Amino acid sequence: MRHYLDHNATAPLRPEVIDIIAETMRHDGNSLSVHEEGRHAHKIVEDAREQVRALVNAPVNSVIFTSGGTESIHYALHGCLRPHNIKRILVSAIEHSAVSANAASTGTEVEIIPARASGVVDLDWLKDRLKEYDVTREGGFLVCLMFANNETGVLQPVHEAADIAHDAGGLLFCDAAQAAGKVPVNFVMSGADMMSLTGHKYGGPAGVGALIAGPNLPLEPVMRGGGHESNRRAGTHNVPAIAGLGLASEMAKQSLARAGEIAALRDRMQDAAISAGAKIWGGDQERLPGTLCLSAPGFSGETQLMTMDLAGIAISAGSACSSGKTKPSHVLTAMGASGDDATSAIRVSLGWNSTTKDADAFIREWPKAYDRIKARSQLEGAA
Amino acid sequence: MRHYLDHNATAPLRPEVIDIIAETMRHDGNSLSVHEEGRHAHKIVEDAREQVRALVNAPVNSVIFTSGGTESIHYALHGCLRPHNIKRILVSAIEHSAVSANAASTGTEVEIIPARASGVVDLDWLKDRLKEYDVTREGGFLVCLMFANNETGVLQPVHEAADIAHDAGGLLFCDAAQAAGKVPVNFVMSGADMMSLTGHKYGGPAGVGALIAGPNLPLEPVMRGGGHESNRRAGTHNVPAIAGLGLASEMAKQSLARAGEIAALRDRMQDAAISAGAKIWGGDQERLPGTLCLSAPGFSGETQLMTMDLAGIAISAGSACSSGKTKPSHVLTAMGASGDDATSAIRVSLGWNSTTKDADAFIREWPKAYDRIKARSQLEGAA
Repeated sequence: MRHYLDHNATAPLRPEVIDIIAETMRHDGNSLSVHEEGRHAHKIVEDAREQVRALVNAPVNSVIFTSGGTESIHYALHGCLRPHNIKRILVSAIEHSAVSANAASTGTEVEIIPARASGVVDLDWLKDRLKEYDVTREGGFLVCLMFANNETGVLQPVHEAADIAHDAGGLLFCDAAQAAGKVPVNFVMSGADMMSLTGHKYGGPAGVGALIAGPNLPLEPVMRGGGHESNRRAGTHNVPAIAGLGLASEMAKQSLARAGEIAALRDRMQDAAISAGAKIWGGDQERLPGTLCLSAPGFSGETQLMTMDLAGIAISAGSACSSGKTKPSHVLTAMGASGDDATSAIRVSLGWNSTTKDADAFIREWPKAYDRIKARSQLEGAA
Repeated sequence: MRHYLDHNATAPLRPEVIDIIAETMRHDGNSLSVHEEGRHAHKIVEDAREQVRALVNAPVNSVIFTSGGTESIHYALHGCLRPHNIKRILVSAIEHSAVSANAASTGTEVEIIPARASGVVDLDWLKDRLKEYDVTREGGFLVCLMFANNETGVLQPVHEAADIAHDAGGLLFCDAAQAAGKVPVNFVMSGADMMSLTGHKYGGPAGVGALIAGPNLPLEPVMRGGGHESNRRAGTHNVPAIAGLGLASEMAKQSLARAGEIAALRDRMQDAAISAGAKIWGGDQERLPGTLCLSAPGFSGETQLMTMDLAGIAISAGSACSSGKTKPSHVLTAMGASGDDATSAIRVSLGWNSTTKDADAFIREWPKAYDRIKARSQLEGAA
């Protein structure tokens, strides 16, 4: 029996979502076609749009379907450039690489907003930086701050950051890929001008996501061609996946109440890890309920991953999106981690289908493995 | 019973493809994760890459998975700009709007290569245009020519166009969205430097496609973030859809032999339409086996679509991607159509699951409807 504790990389699909996708795949029809098949496909897309809208309390006509989180981020960052005369992008130091890399590819100036040791972005720095900023003279700017960090799970002060950005005449983009469907996300209340989310992080399918942007926010489309998405994003609708995203959004909204239960499982794993000598990242902050990021000095992240994998437990050493890279996590580095603290970090992440058995497996296997490592290094030290 | 004769808009999924997608959706795992679940996902992606590669005879390491045709086109056109110093894009007059619109959004000079009345692009014009072209002085250029037109089905002289482009020092991009899986497409033999395809046109899922580009062709990535697709396209792999695209590609390759049978159905519909007074577009050219584009003077495309829809037959008035627009097709206009010829055009398109019953339904219903329209207009003329 395997225990999948890597929901932040990609979450298992909900069975009901698999069913609706399989069912929808049996229907013909392009959502822009006028015949019966096309009208049926169109209705599925619009129903799903309502479900996504409800999950994040987005205004009418603000949900733009995309192919996933990376495209939503790329679209937000590139699409706002010309309409808002963006000359500078301020990216938090703990953003997903999709945000920092797509910011860099815009060709505008990019600045990094530092983070504190707590894992929270440093808004004092931002306030200070923007105090003298003159939009008329220097051009517009965009602040990028995620809703919740993918490695530590730490929730970020998006609303305050949006206020700071707006006061100085700028815009705020919020990548909510890890937060949507796991904690309450309210687009309107967040103050963000644009927000991205993706289905596969909360029980929906991969290959589909959304950019939330108010209908009156000028955006220059990236994907062009057909008139899909009110001319904001061309490309044939992935109707089955959109139906799946819609249902996953509805089900995630209904299950937000389960967050306390998930947090309790996470906290039990955390306590066991601390007892065995682990250091927790962001442990004193408000976090995603299912995310646990820890360091175990002397026990490299890669070795932990392999050891747990053999024990039937899937975890992650850093973000899955940067697997293969051996350099330490930029998130933990931004929080001040160095040396062994940085290289011995792992991420354990739970989600909608996590059970006591999953947490128990980790609690049974991980401290045992760490004890073995510590005993061996003591023997080696004594020899 | 409905008859779906709109395969060029989107084709029904093959049942085996639905099954493999549903099955794959039941597995956890991000293809970049190192644990067992991740390695399994990775293998699925690489197996599918081989299947796509085999369909279009692409070299090893040349298949880049994307979210579909529009993204593949966008990537090709934007990604080659800087590495190849592209200063001019020559777009055939009959390209899909995704090609012309994404060419325009590059900000480079765009020129239109005219088409002949036959529906074939005018390569004499291209040869003439490029005769004096000086890449050193004027910068690089890109020619865009589709493999087969989506409205008329007419196959294009891609190889000759590639020779002309290469002789003058340029590149050629070929949108093969409508051709792949329907007629033999050979990337290497075509001479194209880049080629796009999408799953949902030949029995695969929507939301997934590929850009074919030789591993040594420099391209600047558009989607950035994770290291997916050898750093050529970031974004979590849509593993189930990629598995579906792979299987659809393998099955389409095996069924290419059925093209003659599909063409026979198309030709029977065509004969019936001609007998009733229709004009065929591209009828004397080599075409996709299942595509029939006709005009019926006095019987507007929209009315034909509605009439057939009520009779249980799904067809298209122009490309589905531009539905809602009432202006005449740019493809037919480029072929010299005007007035009634242009506004009374429809597209009937067959594919992998089309049967004699589908063709019979059209043969029974369409001429009857057209006769009724003609009789009424005669009455009105007499009144």
